[in-house]
Amino acid sequence: MKGQVIGYTIGILLSILGIFECLPALLDFHDGSPNALAFFECAIVSMFFGGALILTNYTYKKDISIRQTFMLTSLSWFFMSLFASFPLYFSDLHISFTDAFFEAISGITTTGSTILSGLDTMSRGILLWRSITQWIGGIGIIAFAIVILPFLRVGGMQLFQTESSDRSEKIMPRTFDIVKSLLQVYVFLTLACFLTYNILGMNIFDALNHALTTIPTGGYSTHDASFGYFESPALHYAGAFFMLAGGIPFILYVKFFFQGKFEFFKDEQFKSVLAMFAALIFILTAWAYNSTDYSIFESLRYATFNIISVVTTTGFATTDYTVWGSFAASFFFFITFLGACAGSTAGGIKVMRLIIAFRLLRLQLKKLIYPRGVFTVHYQGRSLDPSIAMNVLGFLAVFVTTNAVLTVLLTLLGLDFETAISGAATSIANVGPGIGERIGPAGNFSDLPDAAKWLLSGGMLLGRLEILTILVLFKPDYWRA
Amino acid sequence: MKGQVIGYTIGILLSILGIFECLPALLDFHDGSPNALAFFECAIVSMFFGGALILTNYTYKKDISIRQTFMLTSLSWFFMSLFASFPLYFSDLHISFTDAFFEAISGITTTGSTILSGLDTMSRGILLWRSITQWIGGIGIIAFAIVILPFLRVGGMQLFQTESSDRSEKIMPRTFDIVKSLLQVYVFLTLACFLTYNILGMNIFDALNHALTTIPTGGYSTHDASFGYFESPALHYAGAFFMLAGGIPFILYVKFFFQGKFEFFKDEQFKSVLAMFAALIFILTAWAYNSTDYSIFESLRYATFNIISVVTTTGFATTDYTVWGSFAASFFFFITFLGACAGSTAGGIKVMRLIIAFRLLRLQLKKLIYPRGVFTVHYQGRSLDPSIAMNVLGFLAVFVTTNAVLTVLLTLLGLDFETAISGAATSIANVGPGIGERIGPAGNFSDLPDAAKWLLSGGMLLGRLEILTILVLFKPDYWRA
Repeated sequence: MKGQVIGYTIGILLSILGIFECLPALLDFHDGSPNALAFFECAIVSMFFGGALILTNYTYKKDISIRQTFMLTSLSWFFMSLFASFPLYFSDLHISFTDAFFEAISGITTTGSTILSGLDTMSRGILLWRSITQWIGGIGIIAFAIVILPFLRVGGMQLFQTESSDRSEKIMPRTFDIVKSLLQVYVFLTLACFLTYNILGMNIFDALNHALTTIPTGGYSTHDASFGYFESPALHYAGAFFMLAGGIPFILYVKFFFQGKFEFFKDEQFKSVLAMFAALIFILTAWAYNSTDYSIFESLRYATFNIISVVTTTGFATTDYTVWGSFAASFFFFITFLGACAGSTAGGIKVMRLIIAFRLLRLQLKKLIYPRGVFTVHYQGRSLDPSIAMNVLGFLAVFVTTNAVLTVLLTLLGLDFETAISGAATSIANVGPGIGERIGPAGNFSDLPDAAKWLLSGGMLLGRLEILTILVLFKPDYWRA
Repeated sequence: MKGQVIGYTIGILLSILGIFECLPALLDFHDGSPNALAFFECAIVSMFFGGALILTNYTYKKDISIRQTFMLTSLSWFFMSLFASFPLYFSDLHISFTDAFFEAISGITTTGSTILSGLDTMSRGILLWRSITQWIGGIGIIAFAIVILPFLRVGGMQLFQTESSDRSEKIMPRTFDIVKSLLQVYVFLTLACFLTYNILGMNIFDALNHALTTIPTGGYSTHDASFGYFESPALHYAGAFFMLAGGIPFILYVKFFFQGKFEFFKDEQFKSVLAMFAALIFILTAWAYNSTDYSIFESLRYATFNIISVVTTTGFATTDYTVWGSFAASFFFFITFLGACAGSTAGGIKVMRLIIAFRLLRLQLKKLIYPRGVFTVHYQGRSLDPSIAMNVLGFLAVFVTTNAVLTVLLTLLGLDFETAISGAATSIANVGPGIGERIGPAGNFSDLPDAAKWLLSGGMLLGRLEILTILVLFKPDYWRA
């Protein structure tokens, strides 16, 4: 049957989700929190549904076509978010289902926008569950970006087809090897982050939770003050370091750890993202030093942490940078779109596309000067296929248009312009905080109208799956073919 | 000598400007206004400089290379704006040179943002001069778009190369014929607009000024309340009609009047712009009817006039639509970017590019579904050259990026986010009003800092010349070649 692989895979994913739900259950059971029961019940429901899907769709043929992959990807993220929302809904938070789903999809998509406050006194199971959703979502998106997207040819991601990639429509073989390596790297980075945080002064619970949300560039915290709760400069720089680590191409780690190749400085994205951070941090440090009471070291620290947080689309905050004047607000608004490297857990446009777009602009100017000249754009040492160039520019147009449409829809619900346009941006780029008083780094998404939360949830999902992956499902051709 | 044609052409343009300056001089002389002298003196200065440039650069060879054309275009718009600012600066307005230059370049680029208030009691010469700058700028941009841009291959405008176009680097031959036809059409439309306005109730002076600023989709008015000063519904609809007339491809008029071919409904831009207006007007009418006290007819009238005004990048207003709630504000913000048809006086992205971008998106989705399929995009019955597709998407990326950069620079000067982002958009798209209290349709650009006025002046020039025409001058290759 056609949909079997889809059902089977989602079954596996839901079962894994159920297993992970046992962790907050055990923690809340140990703490004597009433949420333990909710978590256990939801774990059983997830595992039951997952198991049922596995059994009813079991098949020896694990092949899947490109067309089915679009459906599988979209449904996976949706069902993971749906099932992840159940324990939040049935917990003692007594939040609406809208809020529970918003919080869950914000976790699974590693966005980090939250409708919860009072985190500091919340049951530890809930906090751990939020962190776990981001951690699962993080490895999910890396696998999606490295294993699946190159085959879907979405937004120029075919650049990441390796020489060994199978160009046929069958993408299952070799997938498990790659995913296993990525998972090992992911666990290793998380452990390193956890130990660093713990050594630098976080307690074990805080260190664990922040490690689980730093590496996937998620941004959920265990404190309302976010990362700013910890006043240690060393922790801020450690946080910046590990957010950056989560925002660079994971294939570089795999090459380093499993093949002994140190290719970081051979990678165009890695070099560019460092240069970009240096420039952005320099500008904002100068601005913060001139327009706030901060010393030059404080300015540098706040600029470094918060810029890396937004550009890697993590969304932790160590301070409310939007009160540094309207320049800082618009600066953070626009860097929301950038995103760190493709092939990492970062959302947004991503450095690979920025590099290509910039080179295409230079090419176009050159062609204006020498109309008869023949020029090509290179990326990572190879000349760029025109169809990839077109995909990249097309992605930019779709990305901007999606933001505009979502903004207009949000204002239709009565949101003010600033909240709407930055809410759209922060959800589609999977960052977390917007700008403005309401949803800025010091704000919270809880008092938005329900319809706005659903729209933003849709924005997170669209952005996470590179928009076109979902858009294609709405094209009649998809269902006809 | 290399620059001779440039100097010669600018000399002719400045002489023409000087001749036009005699009109407000005569009017103010008749009115007994002290500005008459300022206008006469400035007219003499313009003609003197223009004449000097003609004489010192006179040459039999009227050939000009594509590279020189970039320089000629940029310098023409700059010098026209500079000389047009002199009478404003030396008049009894006693405004700073920054303000005079802002007002003049806003006129020549047919933007229509103003730093002046108290228009209703201002000397008539000044008012007429503002209108004339827009009228000159309008025919200038049509000639630029139809005669020059297709050869520069900027942003996909090579689509408008006609079969008879000479593809060599020499663009002077045949140019005068085409410009003559365009000018006749332009004068005819202006006269028709003037008569209509006059018949429907405007006095001769108001009718003349508004006709001079309607056809070039400029938007300068003789009243602080803009077109809203006239309370006649018939005038509002007449204004909407003639703004629309200024926003459709002028080559269609030339074909109609000089070749007897009625090809309006064969033109993709014309059909699309009508469909787009129908959809936008429907949405906003429904919104206005539901969220204001207006009757359904008032809602329709205000929506029709103000949408056509913004999308054709005219910038007249009949009411402050930004107080209709944040939906209306964001709606008008985003339609600021659209622009009407390429080959008209409208600025912005333009319908031709929107059509192509939309078709490329559909193509891309189709390719995701059928990875091995071969598809092409058609425009105006012909399959689209991939290099044009790339130029169009590249233009969109540059357009959006330019807006972002200008916004950030404006916030650096202390402008609030909304004023900065909509000010950038309205200047680069050559519309006129932004959103927000300060520079919205009921506001005024006068109290912005001087540096912001210069930045916005730069934005108007960049937008008017399709950005890349100017950007190319900043590439070292340009000067090396």
